[in-house]
Amino acid sequence: MSILKAAIIGGGNIADNNHIPALKELGDQVEVVAVCSRDLTKAQALADKHGIPNAFSYTGEMYQQCALDLVVICTPNHLHYPQTIEALEHNCHVFCEKPPALTAQDAHEMADLAAQKGLILAYNFQLRQSAEWELLMRCKADGLLGNIYHIKAHFLRRRGIPGWGNFTNKDMQGGGALMDLGVHVLDLALCALGYPTPDQVLGNTYDFIGKTGGKGLMGNWNPKTFEVEDAAMAYLSFPSKVSIMLSASFALNTQTDKDRNLEIFGSKGGVKLFPFTMYTEIAGELADIQFPYLEEVDMQLKNTKAFLDACQGKPSTVCTAKQGATLQAIVERIYASAES
Amino acid sequence: MSILKAAIIGGGNIADNNHIPALKELGDQVEVVAVCSRDLTKAQALADKHGIPNAFSYTGEMYQQCALDLVVICTPNHLHYPQTIEALEHNCHVFCEKPPALTAQDAHEMADLAAQKGLILAYNFQLRQSAEWELLMRCKADGLLGNIYHIKAHFLRRRGIPGWGNFTNKDMQGGGALMDLGVHVLDLALCALGYPTPDQVLGNTYDFIGKTGGKGLMGNWNPKTFEVEDAAMAYLSFPSKVSIMLSASFALNTQTDKDRNLEIFGSKGGVKLFPFTMYTEIAGELADIQFPYLEEVDMQLKNTKAFLDACQGKPSTVCTAKQGATLQAIVERIYASAES
Amino acid sequence: MSILKAAIIGGGNIADNNHIPALKELGDQVEVVAVCSRDLTKAQALADKHGIPNAFSYTGEMYQQCALDLVVICTPNHLHYPQTIEALEHNCHVFCEKPPALTAQDAHEMADLAAQKGLILAYNFQLRQSAEWELLMRCKADGLLGNIYHIKAHFLRRRGIPGWGNFTNKDMQGGGALMDLGVHVLDLALCALGYPTPDQVLGNTYDFIGKTGGKGLMGNWNPKTFEVEDAAMAYLSFPSKVSIMLSASFALNTQTDKDRNLEIFGSKGGVKLFPFTMYTEIAGELADIQFPYLEEVDMQLKNTKAFLDACQGKPSTVCTAKQGATLQAIVERIYASAES
Amino acid sequence: MSILKAAIIGGGNIADNNHIPALKELGDQVEVVAVCSRDLTKAQALADKHGIPNAFSYTGEMYQQCALDLVVICTPNHLHYPQTIEALEHNCHVFCEKPPALTAQDAHEMADLAAQKGLILAYNFQLRQSAEWELLMRCKADGLLGNIYHIKAHFLRRRGIPGWGNFTNKDMQGGGALMDLGVHVLDLALCALGYPTPDQVLGNTYDFIGKTGGKGLMGNWNPKTFEVEDAAMAYLSFPSKVSIMLSASFALNTQTDKDRNLEIFGSKGGVKLFPFTMYTEIAGELADIQFPYLEEVDMQLKNTKAFLDACQGKPSTVCTAKQGATLQAIVERIYASAES
Amino acid sequence: MSILKAAIIGGGNIADNNHIPALKELGDQVEVVAVCSRDLTKAQALADKHGIPNAFSYTGEMYQQCALDLVVICTPNHLHYPQTIEALEHNCHVFCEKPPALTAQDAHEMADLAAQKGLILAYNFQLRQSAEWELLMRCKADGLLGNIYHIKAHFLRRRGIPGWGNFTNKDMQGGGALMDLGVHVLDLALCALGYPTPDQVLGNTYDFIGKTGGKGLMGNWNPKTFEVEDAAMAYLSFPSKVSIMLSASFALNTQTDKDRNLEIFGSKGGVKLFPFTMYTEIAGELADIQFPYLEEVDMQLKNTKAFLDACQGKPSTVCTAKQGATLQAIVERIYASAES
Amino acid sequence: MSILKAAIIGGGNIADNNHIPALKELGDQVEVVAVCSRDLTKAQALADKHGIPNAFSYTGEMYQQCALDLVVICTPNHLHYPQTIEALEHNCHVFCEKPPALTAQDAHEMADLAAQKGLILAYNFQLRQSAEWELLMRCKADGLLGNIYHIKAHFLRRRGIPGWGNFTNKDMQGGGALMDLGVHVLDLALCALGYPTPDQVLGNTYDFIGKTGGKGLMGNWNPKTFEVEDAAMAYLSFPSKVSIMLSASFALNTQTDKDRNLEIFGSKGGVKLFPFTMYTEIAGELADIQFPYLEEVDMQLKNTKAFLDACQGKPSTVCTAKQGATLQAIVERIYASAES
Repeated sequence: MSILKAAIIGGGNIADNNHIPALKELGDQVEVVAVCSRDLTKAQALADKHGIPNAFSYTGEMYQQCALDLVVICTPNHLHYPQTIEALEHNCHVFCEKPPALTAQDAHEMADLAAQKGLILAYNFQLRQSAEWELLMRCKADGLLGNIYHIKAHFLRRRGIPGWGNFTNKDMQGGGALMDLGVHVLDLALCALGYPTPDQVLGNTYDFIGKTGGKGLMGNWNPKTFEVEDAAMAYLSFPSKVSIMLSASFALNTQTDKDRNLEIFGSKGGVKLFPFTMYTEIAGELADIQFPYLEEVDMQLKNTKAFLDACQGKPSTVCTAKQGATLQAIVERIYASAES
Repeated sequence: MSILKAAIIGGGNIADNNHIPALKELGDQVEVVAVCSRDLTKAQALADKHGIPNAFSYTGEMYQQCALDLVVICTPNHLHYPQTIEALEHNCHVFCEKPPALTAQDAHEMADLAAQKGLILAYNFQLRQSAEWELLMRCKADGLLGNIYHIKAHFLRRRGIPGWGNFTNKDMQGGGALMDLGVHVLDLALCALGYPTPDQVLGNTYDFIGKTGGKGLMGNWNPKTFEVEDAAMAYLSFPSKVSIMLSASFALNTQTDKDRNLEIFGSKGGVKLFPFTMYTEIAGELADIQFPYLEEVDMQLKNTKAFLDACQGKPSTVCTAKQGATLQAIVERIYASAES
Repeated sequence: MSILKAAIIGGGNIADNNHIPALKELGDQVEVVAVCSRDLTKAQALADKHGIPNAFSYTGEMYQQCALDLVVICTPNHLHYPQTIEALEHNCHVFCEKPPALTAQDAHEMADLAAQKGLILAYNFQLRQSAEWELLMRCKADGLLGNIYHIKAHFLRRRGIPGWGNFTNKDMQGGGALMDLGVHVLDLALCALGYPTPDQVLGNTYDFIGKTGGKGLMGNWNPKTFEVEDAAMAYLSFPSKVSIMLSASFALNTQTDKDRNLEIFGSKGGVKLFPFTMYTEIAGELADIQFPYLEEVDMQLKNTKAFLDACQGKPSTVCTAKQGATLQAIVERIYASAES
Repeated sequence: MSILKAAIIGGGNIADNNHIPALKELGDQVEVVAVCSRDLTKAQALADKHGIPNAFSYTGEMYQQCALDLVVICTPNHLHYPQTIEALEHNCHVFCEKPPALTAQDAHEMADLAAQKGLILAYNFQLRQSAEWELLMRCKADGLLGNIYHIKAHFLRRRGIPGWGNFTNKDMQGGGALMDLGVHVLDLALCALGYPTPDQVLGNTYDFIGKTGGKGLMGNWNPKTFEVEDAAMAYLSFPSKVSIMLSASFALNTQTDKDRNLEIFGSKGGVKLFPFTMYTEIAGELADIQFPYLEEVDMQLKNTKAFLDACQGKPSTVCTAKQGATLQAIVERIYASAES
Repeated sequence: MSILKAAIIGGGNIADNNHIPALKELGDQVEVVAVCSRDLTKAQALADKHGIPNAFSYTGEMYQQCALDLVVICTPNHLHYPQTIEALEHNCHVFCEKPPALTAQDAHEMADLAAQKGLILAYNFQLRQSAEWELLMRCKADGLLGNIYHIKAHFLRRRGIPGWGNFTNKDMQGGGALMDLGVHVLDLALCALGYPTPDQVLGNTYDFIGKTGGKGLMGNWNPKTFEVEDAAMAYLSFPSKVSIMLSASFALNTQTDKDRNLEIFGSKGGVKLFPFTMYTEIAGELADIQFPYLEEVDMQLKNTKAFLDACQGKPSTVCTAKQGATLQAIVERIYASAES
Repeated sequence: MSILKAAIIGGGNIADNNHIPALKELGDQVEVVAVCSRDLTKAQALADKHGIPNAFSYTGEMYQQCALDLVVICTPNHLHYPQTIEALEHNCHVFCEKPPALTAQDAHEMADLAAQKGLILAYNFQLRQSAEWELLMRCKADGLLGNIYHIKAHFLRRRGIPGWGNFTNKDMQGGGALMDLGVHVLDLALCALGYPTPDQVLGNTYDFIGKTGGKGLMGNWNPKTFEVEDAAMAYLSFPSKVSIMLSASFALNTQTDKDRNLEIFGSKGGVKLFPFTMYTEIAGELADIQFPYLEEVDMQLKNTKAFLDACQGKPSTVCTAKQGATLQAIVERIYASAES
């Protein structure tokens, strides 16, 4: 199988620390031939640091000069849509950072174009690659959980409004805690259920703390320019009575600063994901099962590999374009409910 | 102030162990003059045990023979409505076990009649009397929480479907985990918010485990006659964007068998109720506050006293007829949502 | 089924606190009609306390005057043999305290006579009735352990040489820690393996602390009259390479004063008995399983019931006469090995 | 005292990470002048990395070209015997990895030749150099333990069958868990007793998990080529009734993956080695003694120094040739018992 | 030895719950023949309850009518002096509650009169009888501590101002936390040092919380009538440079409500009393020694027995009249320092 | 503001690891232009390592050749006085290591000269810069503690007599544990109180362990040359009845080797400093407040910055010359008390 030619779009931390190192480690499947950032100095610096032959400040120039099989999009949320469309039109597979887009409409168009072109469009929801999630999917497949009927999913920070970047800018990010954090656990919850579309969605968003200010644990944010939600709560009801309770926060008066977990309730067994514990019955007794030797894995490496496998036609667990569109539509409905 | 004359309706455990002992300890406010149970033997046994002068098998006979100021209703849920109406018509104050009734309509009628008669109708939601809840209300009054905007409330058992009584009989109880357990924490959540009525309600109910059977931790139940929900999940959205997430279960594949708690999130502080912990900022730092010397209190005794105080025109924290009707309407809307 | 007539032989604590209360609770199966003790005052006091109609100081007199279906023998070890033989000859079932006898020869004779008479002879190894042991047997039956090939069994006290009774008298007890404590866990280990007879036995016994003296945690013993072993260690090798490591002590310089446990190692799973934990693989991962809701049971009550069931021809888990003889032979071989 | 000239035989990890760094740090006693490995590339790479002047692929060539005082043997077990004999015949002291040899006969010949030549032959049992073991030997010397009469020694892994090297190859290694792990704790147990020879040995070996396969925690092993024991259990009975219980496993359904400990029971005090705790009586009371400031030491460095001290005629705690032969004979008797 | 005739003076809880039960259990040494309380009803009730033949309201009457060998004084502090003098003059041994008296002068007179009369006067400092203190004295006697040179002693309550009795009345009690609590741990500290008299005393007393009011954990006290210290801190310097740091509080903003402990620092070993832990060196290593099997003892029973033993001329550990006077003088000097 | 020119006096660890790195990080305020050590080789090595342009062995030469704004004095205690005087006379600000000097007289002279010259003289008490201490000062300023009336301060090591340097040399260091460790916590305690001067001081010093020898946890010290105190205990009584209990040790038979803490007791709240916990009342209940997100800070960096700020006329929390003199006078009075 030939080596895929890849380009990186976006010159920030996530390109530098996550995507490029992962791609470099997968040298038998992929070669990074270009990096593109509006700021050419940044692009060049990244290229130099990682030994990438080309640096660009315009994607158009890049597509013209380089023969690419795929691009990795690591730019702010509002650029995901136009850059994905452009890449697909240049016949490139696309590995795009989450969330998929700012609107459901955009995400659907992206998925449709990928399908039409026969290209892979995938989103970087890394938690799918954790040892815990893989074990959950094996337990589900082995029937240990029975029918899954309710999931509680949350990703809560106590004072984790980022003091850097554009995280509190609504136009660029499309939203706050739900868009940045909630989508991670929502993706997992949907995976556990087979990625259905809910019948009903009810939710609320808040910004009391974000707009008031306070102690910052991820740098200090400016309450005066805080435009997004600091917390979002939602309930999703699916066909066959299945339901999800979803909570996400940048700032909330809660116990810990990083509390990210899912509880999956099935008719035969329930699972708390972190640390992975199963609650079930064994030999007629209530049993708690722990897995003390689960490995910590490099989730980015595994997710990048999953994307590359998909590009090469192999089975893959990466988040598909269609799943991304389904998820984006749910996010949009939560925001709509909150504003109603 | 004269001593109130009281009668007990219902001859089960809750009369024997909770209500009668509480009333006896409050001898300066109340005297128990009669006990009434369909089964006269039971009524007589209770009367003998507690030194109550009269025992009856029909309430009609009781009202005829005894001059009563109040009755305490400790019968299955479906009898709350008719017995309350009858008592009010005999000009008695009523202290009724929870839930208020089987339908919102009934609960509203009960409240209306009480109002019209100028009588006290109150419901026995004891958790309001816990030291934790009283402290919460003081903290709220002192402004330590700011605006409360979200509450997570749950009352979860792992395998606590009662193996006795009528708890799994839908006609008599009107429902399962929500009706029996969920109402306790829902009442508290509503109290914290000023007992508003939600704009929107979305919920689901389940009966997988109840209908399949399994290990019982509160005796063994019969899955063949299991007619109610073993779990209920709901989301309530109120005016001003306030929201409640509610979870209740008789049976769920979760960690502990008795997990009852509320998390109250306010703009200045948040509280986890059991054990009471506040999350806030003090002197510019994130602070966790614990209260290691909260007393355990006799909640039934305090709630009975609150009811008697209300009857005597004193300030009281007991659940009012109107609050009970509001709560019952929400419960009904959750069931309706679950069936839609 | 008619009520069995029972007599108690022996007037000590174990009769008073364990056997008689258990028999009284099982009044639908058994009636205690006599108690017999060398010391008639003791016998009469027990009879009075528990409402037993007859008290005797000679068993001969008792058999003459009472029509008995069964006897329970609660006397020092050296009396188990003659009293069991006498009872069987009077056509009584026998429930005998552990250990079965002082020698393997005696235990075999007892078993042979019971078999010949068609009577039940059983030994009071109560741990078989613990919720943990029952769960182990269910797990084994369900194949969760695979082939069991090694067991570590120990019953260790740090300074638990009893300061009362005849526990340090070799003629009356036949031995020390092995005879009194080790047999309990040896019985369980043999049960788990199907009660096989070992090919080879190697063991040692010690009496350093017992003969030196020291702090006593079960009263103060007299080192000058200490005649038995304070610790015994043994290794049993069975056909098919199965093995048991056995440790028992009245006194040992070890961490805790009461350390009684078994570890059962099987090809698919291993179990540590107290608290019950299983070590195995689930869904391809190493899993630790705990059972947080195991009930504490009244082991004496259940074991007495098991004996009565056996007398009435029902299935039973009580230790049989044949098992008792097998166990006694192993104990004898350990002592023989220790003295060689 | 002149600096000793040393050579390393074997080019694997243990040479690279343990022996060479230790020798380099002891530059005032020893100088490494050569490294020899069948694979000359490996030998040269090691020499280059550590600044060793010579690299060889044949020991014969090495002995011819270098004037050596000692060699360190870091090759697979089956080479220990021939390489030791060869080294001794070239008048070199030998520091050999454990276990001493494949057979007792070989180990005895090695010891005899060393004695005859007046050379030091020593084995690398590092645990003797731990702070815990040194403290134990001091406590024993101070009489704090009294007579030591029983030792439980175990080295258990749950799923630690090495997925690399030749650990599952019987011809090269001579055995499995006992040969690789059990010898470490057996050496300590024998040390505590003065290195006696047992009167009787009884043991068993198992290979259920090794031959079936499963989750590997030290890489993945191949069950089809698994030839050694995955677990060994043994009981050793010595003169004066002293005894050792020994357990070793590569794979066992037990709680932790690395459980290595000794319990030493003496008439005055007992010790659990890791973490070091003594159980004894002080001032007439049962006392538990902990030593919270024991240092972690570089055991390899200290053991290498102990060997060099022995070569230079100083007192030393290194495992002698005679002790090694005694240990090897016991190992052989355990295997013989297991096969009988 | 003849049975001693005893009388109880004082009709409060400490007589009823502590002293009388202890004396009754020591029936082979003592017989309680009278109880005397200003309130004859109380005296008679106590006499009836405990089967004591005589009840009096005046001690004069009691001494006239009963032939007494000893009295136990359980009255408020200001009565200790006159009642002790009276009892000694009636040739009775005296067992007096702590503290000895209101002034050093009184305590010395009491001791002098007892000495002159050849009678036992002793004070009820029970902690001397704890298993911990007895072990400390044995350790000291065995030389395990070396020279004791510094002691930290404290008895701190967070909000333990008693809401009953006369504890906050200065005239009746003579002081607050120091007089009521501090003396207990001061007595122990002085015992450990051989009951020396300090060269220098420096101390302070406080009453901020007592006079302000707040949450009460031992009932609710009245800040308006609070006359004593709520906390006292002191430093005592003795000949040979020995020193004690003493802290006592009824109310202090500290962690726990009951924090009572001593740390005794010696040249060879140090001890923290509760739970008893020794810090020393063993075999050249720093060692922490715990005593996990110390019994809980009935300290009152043992202290009463110690007093009776003293009366009968046997060796005794009870606090002597002379020690009591030494202690009282120190207390007085602390108060004097605080007021200077 | 112009960059200050600085020189380092003293070539030991504290210069190398603490002061120089801190100054280098504060390059916008200060430039290190010289390092001076009696041992020129050391001075040159430091200069080379840190890129400092000049190295000297005599301060005179240094002042002649370099135009300096400030010096940092990192030499043994007995040099603090002469080197500070010399620096001030050369018109340099001085940042001097603790303790200020060997005598109160010296410290006062140093402060007087600095005042007279209008220069900053400050001492390096770093703990003032900890997040915990800053929070304490904020809590005090916010009135959360009320009146502070008692402080317990200790800095205890179990066996931490330094085995290097001159810590046990009385002439060079002026004292032992009090001079080296106690001053740190004494400085904090005085800060909390506004740096008052005590009315009375009572204290003792000890050297039992230091002169006897034993296990060393900070290297091995020589008991034969041990001249200072290994422990010091003191009580300070201030105007308005405020008091401090102070304990410091290099060696003491206590639980842990590094136990450094302050407890600050106020009328409204109390604080235990490490980890920071406040004990107070909130909403009428006893409350414990923890601050789980306090950052660890680089205390040296912050304290150096505080000194530089003071030099530049900005507000600063660094220990002033006057405070240093007050503290030194207290230390001297403790030693005087101990010797009296």
